[in-house]
Amino acid sequence: MNRFEPNLRIPGPTALPPSVREAGGRQMINHRGPEFAAMLGRILARMKPYFGTTSDVAILSCAGSGGLEAAVVNTLSPGDKVLGVSIGSFGDRIARIAQVYGANLTKLSIDWGRAADPDALREHLVEHPGYKAVLLTHNETSTAVMNPIAELAAVIHDVQPDALIIVDSVSGLGAVPFEMDAWGIDVVVTGSQKAWMAAPGLAMVAASERAWAAMETATMPRFYLDLRKHRESHALGQTPWTPAIAVVYQVDAGLELMEAEGAAAIFARHETCAAATRAGLEALGFELFADPAHYSRTVTAARVPAGFDWKAINAAVKGEGVVLAGGQGPLTGQIFRLGHLGSVTLGEILDAIGVLEQVSIRFERRVEPGAGIAAAQSAALESMSIRPSAGRPATVATGA
Amino acid sequence: MNRFEPNLRIPGPTALPPSVREAGGRQMINHRGPEFAAMLGRILARMKPYFGTTSDVAILSCAGSGGLEAAVVNTLSPGDKVLGVSIGSFGDRIARIAQVYGANLTKLSIDWGRAADPDALREHLVEHPGYKAVLLTHNETSTAVMNPIAELAAVIHDVQPDALIIVDSVSGLGAVPFEMDAWGIDVVVTGSQKAWMAAPGLAMVAASERAWAAMETATMPRFYLDLRKHRESHALGQTPWTPAIAVVYQVDAGLELMEAEGAAAIFARHETCAAATRAGLEALGFELFADPAHYSRTVTAARVPAGFDWKAINAAVKGEGVVLAGGQGPLTGQIFRLGHLGSVTLGEILDAIGVLEQVSIRFERRVEPGAGIAAAQSAALESMSIRPSAGRPATVATGA
Repeated sequence: MNRFEPNLRIPGPTALPPSVREAGGRQMINHRGPEFAAMLGRILARMKPYFGTTSDVAILSCAGSGGLEAAVVNTLSPGDKVLGVSIGSFGDRIARIAQVYGANLTKLSIDWGRAADPDALREHLVEHPGYKAVLLTHNETSTAVMNPIAELAAVIHDVQPDALIIVDSVSGLGAVPFEMDAWGIDVVVTGSQKAWMAAPGLAMVAASERAWAAMETATMPRFYLDLRKHRESHALGQTPWTPAIAVVYQVDAGLELMEAEGAAAIFARHETCAAATRAGLEALGFELFADPAHYSRTVTAARVPAGFDWKAINAAVKGEGVVLAGGQGPLTGQIFRLGHLGSVTLGEILDAIGVLEQVSIRFERRVEPGAGIAAAQSAALESMSIRPSAGRPATVATGA
Repeated sequence: MNRFEPNLRIPGPTALPPSVREAGGRQMINHRGPEFAAMLGRILARMKPYFGTTSDVAILSCAGSGGLEAAVVNTLSPGDKVLGVSIGSFGDRIARIAQVYGANLTKLSIDWGRAADPDALREHLVEHPGYKAVLLTHNETSTAVMNPIAELAAVIHDVQPDALIIVDSVSGLGAVPFEMDAWGIDVVVTGSQKAWMAAPGLAMVAASERAWAAMETATMPRFYLDLRKHRESHALGQTPWTPAIAVVYQVDAGLELMEAEGAAAIFARHETCAAATRAGLEALGFELFADPAHYSRTVTAARVPAGFDWKAINAAVKGEGVVLAGGQGPLTGQIFRLGHLGSVTLGEILDAIGVLEQVSIRFERRVEPGAGIAAAQSAALESMSIRPSAGRPATVATGA
């Protein structure tokens, strides 16, 4: 069936709301002038509560991966003992960055699809003292797993209190609660194209006072991604290098929408869309990939059914206007991923599940028409605490 | 006098043409899909002729300064002898990058406002053999000087043929002719917000076969800015990390306009606007800052007249809707800069000169009304080879 705009259900970039699109089309301004300074100040003030910090945040013109690099190279020195706790492709990436810059890296690799276990982490830290930093992923986009980050941080504080805790929350922050200060996290990274509903191009990096202090002595080389240069410049309402102004406009517009909706409603919307997605996929007979105890609330991964070719399924789904993401690395062809973050609405999830239902039936999988959709809707209503009424039947009064 | 859009006359970001603005407001797409691949291929094909190369170009999501860092860290190793030829703030910047990453840097600092002299460079190279690379600025945005880059490259090839030649052409490329292959340049960097008429956020870096080969053994650490990762990924129609898609849309739209106008016409338009700017400013009694033999064709700098406060002048000029740039570093308050690159038109230059004329008169400088504008127009016509006619007087026929 024809449609007029695709339903972009990849885990970022996320679809832009109309006012964010409009912002991306604005004329340029002087990035060293008062208009830019006002915008930067507004963005930082509105974004900080989502980090859960009173400390300084830096806005860098780069992808989330650039933000991960900034987190590492600003706080560490070559030879530092670093523990990379990896639960997927992005955990591997930040660990690799530390290695490239000369860290003495130990990698704790958890089976893809599972979260890091606080007890196992405790055991490792007890046996291997002296880490300068621990690298953690909050939301692992490649496996659709969300780590129990507060618990993991608590273990680190308990066993190796001097270790810096560096967290990749590129695809988590802004969509789910995060309490950097309360949990004692030292560096947190996010990206404009995820929960913030803007185009890719900006990475936001928050650092604790302890992390800012570590930068004074850290010796990994950095220039473009130097966080202290950004902090100094932000204090003057500027960025050290010419910023991606169009994306700054968009993040500003996205935060305007987030301000209107409110953090609690945003978090609830993400919960609801995640619950609907999982229920819909399961009702269609797809096996979810992630450990049920640690499902991501921004992306869901399901296994490609045995005997089916992901490329063929994906082509059919795309032909109906729904854009999904495949698996990455070793999971290529094994899983597919459906993103539900940023501007996502329940209607878009029902649409995507509906198309997957349609395609499943066309591919001769045994599926009852409406089953996926109904399950998704039920889970959504449950998530919103809207429960079936025992009262009057849902009939229309016919008068007389 | 009120106006409805400022005349953005800073040397980047440059004003966006309507179709480029529209492109910035487009909806997101999957950056690993076929639409993105087609766009990336089109951009690379259309951009390469402006570099004057048949070698591979990488598109990075970062500011021009990130591109400069990429040029250095991909091709060099700590301890390498590197000559940084600096004629201003951006020459200082790339030299500093090399130093931060451990190069054994020698800096040849030329007085600001002057170009590098090929004979002096030859003398230095003869006396100091063994450079691994020479860092040059093509167009120095901070001083409005354009280096004789072909001559400088020829000297390097002659005296130290093994040295890599790394050129910052962030604010030059696309606006003036450049022949990377013919001149034997190894790395050239440019940025989306300059001649390319798009928002900031992308740096484009071209590397010669020799430079690509150097990357195999160069050991400065790099990850986000790794050019080889970009080349591999571009071959698949992708980027290694999520790209600044909105800016990619804009660069694509800008190149569409450049394709229609044609390189020769673009270069001539920049010449004309530069000539008009210089003539207009001089007719208003401003002393140009740069060595007349090496005026930039994308930005012009003039001295703030003795006894005048730049901030006061600038506030008045901005009040009339023209946005100029001040001096950087030691030139703060000493010079001002007027950019004429990217989407610049002669009308915008006449407008800017007109406002400077108006403000000059209001500040009680002795200026004949219309003098600046007339001089700018004359120089523009001269540049376009439109000469006063000796023929019929310019009167309207009144009939019988």
